[in-house]
Amino acid sequence: METFESVRTVLATRQFRDTPIPDDVVREIVEAAHLTASASNAQPWRFIVVQNKDTLKQLGQIATTGPYIPQAPLAIVVATENTPIALSDGSRAIQSMVLTAWSHGVASNWVGFHRLDAVKPLLGIPDNLDVLAIVPFGYPAKAAGAGKKKRKPLGEVVSRERFDQPYS
Amino acid sequence: METFESVRTVLATRQFRDTPIPDDVVREIVEAAHLTASASNAQPWRFIVVQNKDTLKQLGQIATTGPYIPQAPLAIVVATENTPIALSDGSRAIQSMVLTAWSHGVASNWVGFHRLDAVKPLLGIPDNLDVLAIVPFGYPAKAAGAGKKKRKPLGEVVSRERFDQPYS
Repeated sequence: METFESVRTVLATRQFRDTPIPDDVVREIVEAAHLTASASNAQPWRFIVVQNKDTLKQLGQIATTGPYIPQAPLAIVVATENTPIALSDGSRAIQSMVLTAWSHGVASNWVGFHRLDAVKPLLGIPDNLDVLAIVPFGYPAKAAGAGKKKRKPLGEVVSRERFDQPYS
Repeated sequence: METFESVRTVLATRQFRDTPIPDDVVREIVEAAHLTASASNAQPWRFIVVQNKDTLKQLGQIATTGPYIPQAPLAIVVATENTPIALSDGSRAIQSMVLTAWSHGVASNWVGFHRLDAVKPLLGIPDNLDVLAIVPFGYPAKAAGAGKKKRKPLGEVVSRERFDQPYS
């Protein structure tokens, strides 16, 4: 799928079919994270690829906003150093993964920012890292309304030359 | 360009040719930001599209790590609300823009995290927003070594099932 087409149509998905993701697609999603640029090329991140059913179940219990995680055949847990730059870098890597997955028809959703510390003992993540997100991946259960996004009007978020001049 | 191919080959570029970017490509880069997902769909961001030569020159003077900005025919300044989630969301939008631009052969680089407050009066950005980045875009001056990235070995940043089990 063309890059912009992936950006344009990708949808967050919370219901997954029980269909495995082929190994080469999983590998490509992982490589997308691995190859993403980071400030000063520091790569201040770790990615844990979870496919074990029992672990997925436990992730779904831990993440209060992600009870649907166990439906997914794959989740990638993203941990970063505890700095704003690392938070930013990790977010870029997640975007690369989400877009790459979607280009193969694999949907995902960002589960994060709430009480993810309990993931650390489950996966053996050291205390000095922050768990930024759990990202479940899978084929969507419903035909996704690809491309139907609710966004603010373009001119409300994009300006031309100066903040007070809406882009049109 | 296929999505993963864009992720795999995109390179940060600091030398640009003096070739304008077609309007439809600029528009697609802008739309990539506009359409990116954000936590709770809050869209806590603003994007300022700068093509004025004099403004680009001033951005290059302000950004101590981006003196090459005036070479680029386009820079997009990204401002977000002052929260970790907004920082994360803005970073995802930048990644969408960088990948979309690269799929058209347009390179870029992330200039940010250092003394960008002086951008606010220049562009009329309100004080309650943070300037996350200035992203210059243009055709690269040199044949880019696409796909040649220096990254840590995969097994150092990616694990299988648990943190202490390297992915291979």
